[in-house]
Amino acid sequence: MAYFENVSKISYEGSRSKNPFAYKFYNAEEVVAGKTMEEHLRFAMAYWHTLCAGGSDPFGAETAVRGWNGYSAMDKAKARVEAAFEFLDKTGIPFYCFHDIDIAPEGDSLREFYANIDTIVDLLEQGMKSSGKKLLWNTANMFTNPRFLHGAGSTCNADVYAHAAAQIKKGLEVGKRLGAENYVFWGGREGYETLLNTDMGLEQDNIARLFHLANDYAKEIGFGGQFLIEPKPKEPTKHQYDFDAATTLAFLQKYGLEKTFKLNLEANHATLAGHTFQHELRVARINGVLGSLDANQGDMLLGWDTDEFPVNVYDSTLTLYEVLKNDGLGKGGINFDSKVRRASFEPEDLFLAHIAGMDTYAKGLKVAAKLIEDHVFEDVIEKRYSSFKEGIGADVVAGKATLASLAEYALSNENPRPNESGRHELLHSILNQYILAE
Amino acid sequence: MAYFENVSKISYEGSRSKNPFAYKFYNAEEVVAGKTMEEHLRFAMAYWHTLCAGGSDPFGAETAVRGWNGYSAMDKAKARVEAAFEFLDKTGIPFYCFHDIDIAPEGDSLREFYANIDTIVDLLEQGMKSSGKKLLWNTANMFTNPRFLHGAGSTCNADVYAHAAAQIKKGLEVGKRLGAENYVFWGGREGYETLLNTDMGLEQDNIARLFHLANDYAKEIGFGGQFLIEPKPKEPTKHQYDFDAATTLAFLQKYGLEKTFKLNLEANHATLAGHTFQHELRVARINGVLGSLDANQGDMLLGWDTDEFPVNVYDSTLTLYEVLKNDGLGKGGINFDSKVRRASFEPEDLFLAHIAGMDTYAKGLKVAAKLIEDHVFEDVIEKRYSSFKEGIGADVVAGKATLASLAEYALSNENPRPNESGRHELLHSILNQYILAE
Amino acid sequence: MAYFENVSKISYEGSRSKNPFAYKFYNAEEVVAGKTMEEHLRFAMAYWHTLCAGGSDPFGAETAVRGWNGYSAMDKAKARVEAAFEFLDKTGIPFYCFHDIDIAPEGDSLREFYANIDTIVDLLEQGMKSSGKKLLWNTANMFTNPRFLHGAGSTCNADVYAHAAAQIKKGLEVGKRLGAENYVFWGGREGYETLLNTDMGLEQDNIARLFHLANDYAKEIGFGGQFLIEPKPKEPTKHQYDFDAATTLAFLQKYGLEKTFKLNLEANHATLAGHTFQHELRVARINGVLGSLDANQGDMLLGWDTDEFPVNVYDSTLTLYEVLKNDGLGKGGINFDSKVRRASFEPEDLFLAHIAGMDTYAKGLKVAAKLIEDHVFEDVIEKRYSSFKEGIGADVVAGKATLASLAEYALSNENPRPNESGRHELLHSILNQYILAE
Amino acid sequence: MAYFENVSKISYEGSRSKNPFAYKFYNAEEVVAGKTMEEHLRFAMAYWHTLCAGGSDPFGAETAVRGWNGYSAMDKAKARVEAAFEFLDKTGIPFYCFHDIDIAPEGDSLREFYANIDTIVDLLEQGMKSSGKKLLWNTANMFTNPRFLHGAGSTCNADVYAHAAAQIKKGLEVGKRLGAENYVFWGGREGYETLLNTDMGLEQDNIARLFHLANDYAKEIGFGGQFLIEPKPKEPTKHQYDFDAATTLAFLQKYGLEKTFKLNLEANHATLAGHTFQHELRVARINGVLGSLDANQGDMLLGWDTDEFPVNVYDSTLTLYEVLKNDGLGKGGINFDSKVRRASFEPEDLFLAHIAGMDTYAKGLKVAAKLIEDHVFEDVIEKRYSSFKEGIGADVVAGKATLASLAEYALSNENPRPNESGRHELLHSILNQYILAE
Repeated sequence: MAYFENVSKISYEGSRSKNPFAYKFYNAEEVVAGKTMEEHLRFAMAYWHTLCAGGSDPFGAETAVRGWNGYSAMDKAKARVEAAFEFLDKTGIPFYCFHDIDIAPEGDSLREFYANIDTIVDLLEQGMKSSGKKLLWNTANMFTNPRFLHGAGSTCNADVYAHAAAQIKKGLEVGKRLGAENYVFWGGREGYETLLNTDMGLEQDNIARLFHLANDYAKEIGFGGQFLIEPKPKEPTKHQYDFDAATTLAFLQKYGLEKTFKLNLEANHATLAGHTFQHELRVARINGVLGSLDANQGDMLLGWDTDEFPVNVYDSTLTLYEVLKNDGLGKGGINFDSKVRRASFEPEDLFLAHIAGMDTYAKGLKVAAKLIEDHVFEDVIEKRYSSFKEGIGADVVAGKATLASLAEYALSNENPRPNESGRHELLHSILNQYILAE
Repeated sequence: MAYFENVSKISYEGSRSKNPFAYKFYNAEEVVAGKTMEEHLRFAMAYWHTLCAGGSDPFGAETAVRGWNGYSAMDKAKARVEAAFEFLDKTGIPFYCFHDIDIAPEGDSLREFYANIDTIVDLLEQGMKSSGKKLLWNTANMFTNPRFLHGAGSTCNADVYAHAAAQIKKGLEVGKRLGAENYVFWGGREGYETLLNTDMGLEQDNIARLFHLANDYAKEIGFGGQFLIEPKPKEPTKHQYDFDAATTLAFLQKYGLEKTFKLNLEANHATLAGHTFQHELRVARINGVLGSLDANQGDMLLGWDTDEFPVNVYDSTLTLYEVLKNDGLGKGGINFDSKVRRASFEPEDLFLAHIAGMDTYAKGLKVAAKLIEDHVFEDVIEKRYSSFKEGIGADVVAGKATLASLAEYALSNENPRPNESGRHELLHSILNQYILAE
Repeated sequence: MAYFENVSKISYEGSRSKNPFAYKFYNAEEVVAGKTMEEHLRFAMAYWHTLCAGGSDPFGAETAVRGWNGYSAMDKAKARVEAAFEFLDKTGIPFYCFHDIDIAPEGDSLREFYANIDTIVDLLEQGMKSSGKKLLWNTANMFTNPRFLHGAGSTCNADVYAHAAAQIKKGLEVGKRLGAENYVFWGGREGYETLLNTDMGLEQDNIARLFHLANDYAKEIGFGGQFLIEPKPKEPTKHQYDFDAATTLAFLQKYGLEKTFKLNLEANHATLAGHTFQHELRVARINGVLGSLDANQGDMLLGWDTDEFPVNVYDSTLTLYEVLKNDGLGKGGINFDSKVRRASFEPEDLFLAHIAGMDTYAKGLKVAAKLIEDHVFEDVIEKRYSSFKEGIGADVVAGKATLASLAEYALSNENPRPNESGRHELLHSILNQYILAE
Repeated sequence: MAYFENVSKISYEGSRSKNPFAYKFYNAEEVVAGKTMEEHLRFAMAYWHTLCAGGSDPFGAETAVRGWNGYSAMDKAKARVEAAFEFLDKTGIPFYCFHDIDIAPEGDSLREFYANIDTIVDLLEQGMKSSGKKLLWNTANMFTNPRFLHGAGSTCNADVYAHAAAQIKKGLEVGKRLGAENYVFWGGREGYETLLNTDMGLEQDNIARLFHLANDYAKEIGFGGQFLIEPKPKEPTKHQYDFDAATTLAFLQKYGLEKTFKLNLEANHATLAGHTFQHELRVARINGVLGSLDANQGDMLLGWDTDEFPVNVYDSTLTLYEVLKNDGLGKGGINFDSKVRRASFEPEDLFLAHIAGMDTYAKGLKVAAKLIEDHVFEDVIEKRYSSFKEGIGADVVAGKATLASLAEYALSNENPRPNESGRHELLHSILNQYILAE
């Protein structure tokens, strides 16, 4: 049975095509900077947004028209598996990602949940075999169920903590079985609503303990995926501990986890934290923890996670610039943690939205590759910092200077090197030329 | 000569007094939680805001009417020293803080700057001796001069880096001579305007190098003060590296500086970073780096550093709650990094504003002490997390649990501990009762 | 049957009481500024937050433990009516407010919805008679149902527009029958997600048409309540047309509705629009459209509508200052458009939260009344603007000046009146003294 | 003498040119949608940012290297006139704009200020005659001088009010003499710092009085320019009365000024108010008050007015879309209220920055014209709202419906028109295709 019968397999037709159900920039086989687009852009479909979300918001009921709306419980779960592979097939997206409760209903007990997961994982495994699609990452949803209202790793209730551990254990087993390339932790309830009732120190210690246990178990069972933490500053809670890349780094360093985890960075989470997405990628990159991306965009004038499909080529260009400078994402990929707007409720909108996002990233890839090929920013930077390659600057970098030697130099330096313009406006003009060039 | 002749020495008159030039809550000698208010609240006057600022803003010229406006260069610098001690005497504030360029004009060369500093430091030393006032901290201003337009520790110009080093060297010597309890680094230009021309990795390496050199020199000359970094997320630059407490921790840990530095936290910087001031103090406290405070408040509806005098007793209560839980600030103190509004341009406003701030902190201290004395939040927290003191929870904390043992427990735990209400609203009611109680 | 059997009738016990289920400041019979607190503070319970909300958020399922959770459809609706009057009785809150879908399920057709409403309105009418409780306002929910995904008055679908009209018609009839003092319009879907598909002019014309029709019908049936519009800038949509008080005024004036409508102002909506609540009240007050209040508070560091119970006495004081200067709210009142936090999921929290809010407003009332009694700000303002009471200033106000006469005056005015300090800091100190005084 | 001797006249070289001192998209003579680019894009140079600003910020001194830095007072003013025409000539920008204090120093008295203005206006007049350059608008700076610390039109000091009137009078005379196409009011100090000392009603009445007087005087002397108000929500003051387009409309309507004034909208002011620039233009357009533009852009992650040169083609496209739908800006134009970054301190940066902005607007114009030519959004909108062209929808628009007739229709409408997807994502994909197409 087809859930998206009105849509055929999407193909590349180039930027002049007026066919809305065609890629304008994304051409899987096209080679850019030595690799195909498909190799660079390890796109993944987010199970939750694409197959589970219904378009509700805090003031409105679900609107989405979906072929599986009529089913319930395990029947709905099975229908979604079929829909998943149909969608992946028609879009040509090679990966997918899920939380445990996206794929299987929790049922009435943890035991039943485990059983439901097993049933669905059988189907996913079959689907993956026959389609060649792969699992970018899976994770445990430890934020939706009321049990987690005070947190999962940071809960004040040890029984809830144990339940979280049980979900992670199963998640790692599922990840191993399906060959997940990564396993993700997003701490949507790991934070606080008010400090008046919160033991922040114990909560963070306990989260770290859980991460160490997860790592131990992964080794024990031979799970080969990479561990990722996904920072987000707030929403649902007032404050989440993994506020942004730098905060998460501080946590990882404190608990000796900086070699064990990389970061799964999301565009909308970056802006909610007050940063550009490029900033977050840069911070991760220079600290060796750039792991994977949740591709979406927020509305800069709204203060909540809108999870819009990315359609801004400035952003995708600078994002992929950082990715290329990182020599790619390794086991990571580009997951569309994006949802169609509530008023885009027709099944076709799911395709149109993914096309929008994939084309935006494809165009960004091409522009970023060309910028790097032409050494546009690299040349600027090399020249700008050249004073640290010789003389007193080289001494500083080599660790040969002292405060006294630098002061002596400054006192006797009658003609200090003048500063030069940072050329901010010119650099942004050049970026425009690269983006707008044919 | 008196610069504030219309104002007499301020004394404590209690909350019923209608005299605007009197303390309503601040009573230096009053004992709270075993120490006098003066011992708890190591208030400091900020030289720059109180004696140098003129009330300009990006759209308006200076408005402040000050007795030293008619002087220039060193004459003005000397007049300010007199005014400083008069102000400290009349307000009863025991400490002060300054940047190098606050106390002495830069002149035409580094050599002249050094000489000007020496002249003024002589005067400060005399004033301190005769008055008993103390230096909470000093610092080098490495952001105002055009030379620092690309940064100081993060500059791309090695000669500018050497100049910064020379200022720090002098600052440490001055700090030693005046018995400064701390030395502060605030990186107003240590960040970027655009990533397109920025080598973030090199810039942070170089800042860390400078900090290590400063530490080496402090040891060399026997400077006994504590090193502090002051986080701020943005303004003047688009992004400053020491974004907030957690980000600064990540930096300190990466470069092995976490034992060398504590944090000087500012209320307005906290809110610009998206945090409450209490949050920043809590993060610092549980990581052992709560050093000192810049007491002010921002306008939550404005996006820039307004540096208002603190007048919110909710905030001062929760701030001092964290300070008391930290067993005080040690060598740190409470510096009023606050400026009178542009329309509060009369000299009297400087007193009225400091009274506002000191009373706000004094009231907060009393409320916080009473909250702790009554174990209000401590009892809530102890009960809330009690499940980690026994059984499976205690195993987790003791490192005896594994993912498998926790999962097994969860699977067989037919009657998990129910969650209990977090009582958010009640706790805030209680806070109100403590604040509003006589 | 009792839904809140663990809680007894709440009474006033004064600020020293440690009983959490007691009013500390709210004393219905206490006379303040010539009226009882109950007369000043026409508190209303919000049906939706108190009886319908379950504590879900965009990332979490419902948590609330409520006695009516086991029922469904009309049985649940009837249970809630019972609970409503029990709650109003135990808290002593005199008013309540509801949307049509809060009290009755929509069923399968408009006709069924009408019938369900009628059944419940019978019960409400009985309950009101026997209890003496009153309806502050009712409204039609024209935002939750998927039908309104493109708007109600601003929909692009004329059939949806007709449905909205039908809900309003019924709402006015219900309001008349229950003696509602007001009827409210909140345009949660009256705005846009993207301008690319939006005819803003037609949408606003159509909303205005609907308001005129509502007014015509109210006259026709003799509905005596006051019409209110509730501004909110965003959420659920990207932009809602009634952004804030001033924007709503522009709309009312353009369409000749400024005599027909007043404003229902909400604290959290004010801050989402970038204003203090006092600002919004002031704007409404000086334009003669201050109608009613939705009492709550937002988190200033979060960008969405948190609808927290108001616990900030600074805010409640300045809010009630404006209300007292307005000679009260007339037919309006103070509706707690506030919800308990998701982790405050026990029935008792509903009481604790309303106590928190009522005490906060009661304390604010007392402080505001004392400020006005003492002419604290009035004296400052009268003196500040006194130059417009005489000479050239009086000419300006009287319309006797021209640009030429003013310029001539300025040119020949050798000793212009000097400005005086605005005394910002002192005024906030005084505010503190009034709030913190016993 | 040449102030920009390193830069030659800028010409159009097309998007493949690597010459930084060339237009890539702006081609004055190129015809787009029936008019030349120069006719569409009535660009103006902002005197203050280009010739007066020095790159200072609240934490840093001036950095700009300018040929006139060595002069002072009237000599500097005269040098800037020369530089102005050299800059306009080399860039090909046809218009300029200024505040009174940009062109002439205030001196020691109003009389001296008038005289200084007259001297410089003589030079400007000569320059305009010989160059053909024109004055888009002038205005009086009523915010920088300390006299205006409590406001100009909203001051509490009648003598200050008279001084403001005198500046406006002179401004209108200068505008008439130089043939200004518009006269602008920006109320940088027309607002409040704290409501505790503010009579908002009187202040707004007095501002309105001043506007009426200005209009009377303009008629009296035959000044033919258009009056414009420029909204801005905050900065320098906490709240400015002309918060945004809608708020300003409410003010104009209240005081009967809506036929006298149009709006001068600024991109960065729009975003500070929480709106897109397109939103502000749309609001103005459908209310018939779209007057002129201040072209710049803000940083969406910073909370102050950064006044960056516009380099975002998404924004310029949607801005010019609204302008084209408005049939152009009439007497208005596109003023670069933009400043080079503090680190872009070389004279060449002024050219590079204007090129960046002009190219961005030129590209946006071409994309917008093509979108309109193809009826891209118009077709979507016509179809979307078609239900209001017939049947019950047409009745609504024609004023023939009543609440009762609509309810009756809804009750009997068994097959209501279904909603259709808003196609948000597709529309943004299409926008991308138009922007990225060659």
